[in-house]
Amino acid sequence: MRNQLKGIGASAGIAIAKAYRLEEPELHILKKNVKDKEAENQRLEQAIARSKAELEKITESVNCELGADKAEILAAQLLVLNDPELLNPVFENISTEGINAEFALKESADRFVFMLESMDNEYMRERAKDIRDVTNRVTAHLLGVQIPDPSLISEEVIIIAGDLTPSDTAQLNRRYVKGFTTDIGGRTSHSAIMARSMEIPAVVGTKQAVSMIENGMVVIVDGSEGEVIIDPSSEVIALYEAKKVKYEAQKARWAKVVHEPTVTKDGVHVELAANIGTPADVKGVLANGGEAVGLYRTEFLYMGKDRLPTEEEQFNAYKTVLEKMEGKPVVVRTLDIGGDKELHYLNLPKEMNPFLGFRAIRLCLEEQDIFRTQLRALLRAGSYGNLKIMFPMIATVSEFREAKAILMEEKEKLIASGVQAADNIEIGMMVEIPSTAVMADQFAKEVDFFSIGTNDLIQYTMAADRMNERVSYLYQPYNPAILRLISMVIDAAHKEGKWVGMCGEMAGDPIAIPLLVSLGLDEFSMSATSILPARAQIKELTNEHATSVKEAVLSMKTSEEVIEYVKRTFDIHQV
Amino acid sequence: MRNQLKGIGASAGIAIAKAYRLEEPELHILKKNVKDKEAENQRLEQAIARSKAELEKITESVNCELGADKAEILAAQLLVLNDPELLNPVFENISTEGINAEFALKESADRFVFMLESMDNEYMRERAKDIRDVTNRVTAHLLGVQIPDPSLISEEVIIIAGDLTPSDTAQLNRRYVKGFTTDIGGRTSHSAIMARSMEIPAVVGTKQAVSMIENGMVVIVDGSEGEVIIDPSSEVIALYEAKKVKYEAQKARWAKVVHEPTVTKDGVHVELAANIGTPADVKGVLANGGEAVGLYRTEFLYMGKDRLPTEEEQFNAYKTVLEKMEGKPVVVRTLDIGGDKELHYLNLPKEMNPFLGFRAIRLCLEEQDIFRTQLRALLRAGSYGNLKIMFPMIATVSEFREAKAILMEEKEKLIASGVQAADNIEIGMMVEIPSTAVMADQFAKEVDFFSIGTNDLIQYTMAADRMNERVSYLYQPYNPAILRLISMVIDAAHKEGKWVGMCGEMAGDPIAIPLLVSLGLDEFSMSATSILPARAQIKELTNEHATSVKEAVLSMKTSEEVIEYVKRTFDIHQV
Repeated sequence: MRNQLKGIGASAGIAIAKAYRLEEPELHILKKNVKDKEAENQRLEQAIARSKAELEKITESVNCELGADKAEILAAQLLVLNDPELLNPVFENISTEGINAEFALKESADRFVFMLESMDNEYMRERAKDIRDVTNRVTAHLLGVQIPDPSLISEEVIIIAGDLTPSDTAQLNRRYVKGFTTDIGGRTSHSAIMARSMEIPAVVGTKQAVSMIENGMVVIVDGSEGEVIIDPSSEVIALYEAKKVKYEAQKARWAKVVHEPTVTKDGVHVELAANIGTPADVKGVLANGGEAVGLYRTEFLYMGKDRLPTEEEQFNAYKTVLEKMEGKPVVVRTLDIGGDKELHYLNLPKEMNPFLGFRAIRLCLEEQDIFRTQLRALLRAGSYGNLKIMFPMIATVSEFREAKAILMEEKEKLIASGVQAADNIEIGMMVEIPSTAVMADQFAKEVDFFSIGTNDLIQYTMAADRMNERVSYLYQPYNPAILRLISMVIDAAHKEGKWVGMCGEMAGDPIAIPLLVSLGLDEFSMSATSILPARAQIKELTNEHATSVKEAVLSMKTSEEVIEYVKRTFDIHQV
Repeated sequence: MRNQLKGIGASAGIAIAKAYRLEEPELHILKKNVKDKEAENQRLEQAIARSKAELEKITESVNCELGADKAEILAAQLLVLNDPELLNPVFENISTEGINAEFALKESADRFVFMLESMDNEYMRERAKDIRDVTNRVTAHLLGVQIPDPSLISEEVIIIAGDLTPSDTAQLNRRYVKGFTTDIGGRTSHSAIMARSMEIPAVVGTKQAVSMIENGMVVIVDGSEGEVIIDPSSEVIALYEAKKVKYEAQKARWAKVVHEPTVTKDGVHVELAANIGTPADVKGVLANGGEAVGLYRTEFLYMGKDRLPTEEEQFNAYKTVLEKMEGKPVVVRTLDIGGDKELHYLNLPKEMNPFLGFRAIRLCLEEQDIFRTQLRALLRAGSYGNLKIMFPMIATVSEFREAKAILMEEKEKLIASGVQAADNIEIGMMVEIPSTAVMADQFAKEVDFFSIGTNDLIQYTMAADRMNERVSYLYQPYNPAILRLISMVIDAAHKEGKWVGMCGEMAGDPIAIPLLVSLGLDEFSMSATSILPARAQIKELTNEHATSVKEAVLSMKTSEEVIEYVKRTFDIHQV
């Protein structure tokens, strides 16, 4: 079919609606002389006022729909429109030189952007982008050009974009945005993760959606199959309407198991947990029947700021999550910053291979003030629920011992100063570096639990950057090398009476699930929206052939063999 | 002691001599008006002529002492001095504007350098450096400033430098340069490797040699201990003279075992091989009693050129090495380019994590023309000696199968077209990615041999870039995780009757050697100059406790425990 695009199914489900292209408008700015300078200044003031009103409206709606932290991104843009250093020279230039407002604004903005961009500092470059975005909005008003504004969308649409940034997605209105498709991105890209958390169908990495789809065209997004159909015939629409009904029915079946335990037909219980980033995410965890938080990424507390979060800010966030989870386990991962995740205010040096660099526990063990503040906040919050703490990027036994010793020190200090500190916190670690999987039997003697981070474990074990498209064929979750490491970790932990979770993308994958049950994984942590399908799948499994499944896959040679075997053995047709 | 610097011992031995600072002179160029334009033009011509004469002399001596490939670096600089596009504008400017030669030359050179540097192409930037170097030489003659020229050194010295580039080291005259010390660099840096191949003592990474040592000061370089002593007293000199005598005596003892087989006291034979980069290196391998070439890095054939090497050029290089080795085994590694090793003429895209990127076999399987040309050259050369071929950066069984299939295809094609192709070539692979160590039992069924590349294996297993100083503490060859992987590979290979070599830095390390003998390693490939000390060490070993050594180290938890145990068990005092 000519009008069909193949991409990566980033979020399941079917959406059928008109296309809405989210793209930067072209703004042609010419230098002109104006006679009535007073009128030109007024024209600029009006454009600024309109832009402010728009931004306030967007901020408000984002605040309601998506939470305060996402609204902050937009509040920063509003500040730009009140900045006299940016705007005063513009008004002055109009008055003294008699040039048009668009050009005068461009000149002042260019000067600022150039200055900020030349500072070689991630934070300043982000500020440069804010100035560019906001002045584009004002310029569009001056030129009478419409800026696409996803938050103002008032009919059902499918968003078509090259890529979606966090601020784009922050503005998407769940009521009207039925799905989206982007030219770039993979299953773990920001836009893909956002789509799953918003529960809207999405196909990413289509390469040519933007060039092939025009505004208003009817588009079908099949997030389950990773397909986008452009301008379909009425027969095709009918076909997908039926598919959509079927999918919705399946979702309804999934919804029925929301309060049921996750048990195989022959009585093996596993725990289905969710990965979260902020306290606001807990709502989705509970709504989807999550039995725990298997990974609370604490990085969001440190991002989008120009300073470190205080102990109190952290304490409140952790306490909120623990309280909302009402005694269910919450596994908090300590700060995993560095590598590709930068914090501008820490001024970390650029690295040649950031994925093999100074990040996570490596940074925390050196910058101990940052680490100790987080640990104190956690220890204090621990009394409000069932807290477990794990350290990311542990490579050696010495690192784990050192991190644990610092935690114990802070606990003693809190107790000595009369502050309440939880006493029953389990202390574990991520298994995401090959050395720790290979040494799992030794680590198992020192930890309370493991959580396998498959995204990183796969990338290091295969020596292939998972963000690099040229080597993405080596990102093989089902390579027997990966399964052997996972199996070693589980066996080693069980031998010492410890439990093992998994918090990578793999934990929620329908092909991985029967395999991981067979290998004996105790806890599966995934996107909240994957929990119900996973539970429905596990309730249909029997575990009686686990040993033979394990033996079979661990003696295979290639990823393809494993996938083929699992599909056949567990009768999986759809992925 | 105040006058002592601690660095990294990069090449063993003691050197005592006067310091020779290898540094760029400061060239102060002022714009002046000249009256006698004719005389100014003549002055420039003279300076150019002198620079040419110097460069020719250097090129010639480098050609004799270090080989044609290193002389080529300098020949490129000579070409610059014949470039009318660079020089004509200079003469013209002197004649028409009446400005001084230094300034006119600088203006023309700046223009070229700016143009070349702005092209964002590694090759062009190297050409910009050549132009800068050469015009600096001419300018120095114009200003009457002396350029330090290591090839013109005519008394015994110790070189003091910030860092040494390949072209610097190419010019070092072995007769007069007794040792060197640099502010930056580590054991595997270019200058460290060069020092070992030149067999001169060197200490790198001293951080402050350049700021503390003046020209002509007496300096002691202790490459065995990684120490530099500045301006020592006569007592200290006497002490180190004695140490030097002792070291030379040890070297003489090592020299005695040059033609002996490498056998432990209880009769276990291992093979000591050398790592080489060019045919010229074979001389050193044989002089040091190498029993094989364990790693022939073929990258040098592809570097320092502006096009790929032809099949004929490659055939001649491989044939030369095989013939010179007179039937001893030669393991050739196919092209390992990409990552940090760029080839400008391939125009590979920049990567965020080059060590986890599109390199080595990954590139060869996609750019098959390059790969097939190399394989044909190897197959043809194979008739001239004992050739073994191995593929670098294999991650999956499928990749090995594909690479081997291509090799077999080329062989069939050669035979079909009547060209002689060797029929008995062993085909193996590097084990440097964790997945292959974990899957060694499966790979062992398909390969003829393994060669463990510890440098990369350690960096991927520990997820730590070995070039990144902030995480260099994680580069732990003795971490039990690494030893377990090595042991798994050896056991798996032996079970299938295959042999295992090692070609990383670890193979030549005095602490690793007894450990690797205990684990059953068959072949040790190292710098040629490490072979004799290794042989002397192995001849003192007994292998009777191998099983208990293996059991002990594989059940340890940390690198420190292992090092302590090996030193104690094998009575190793010095490292």
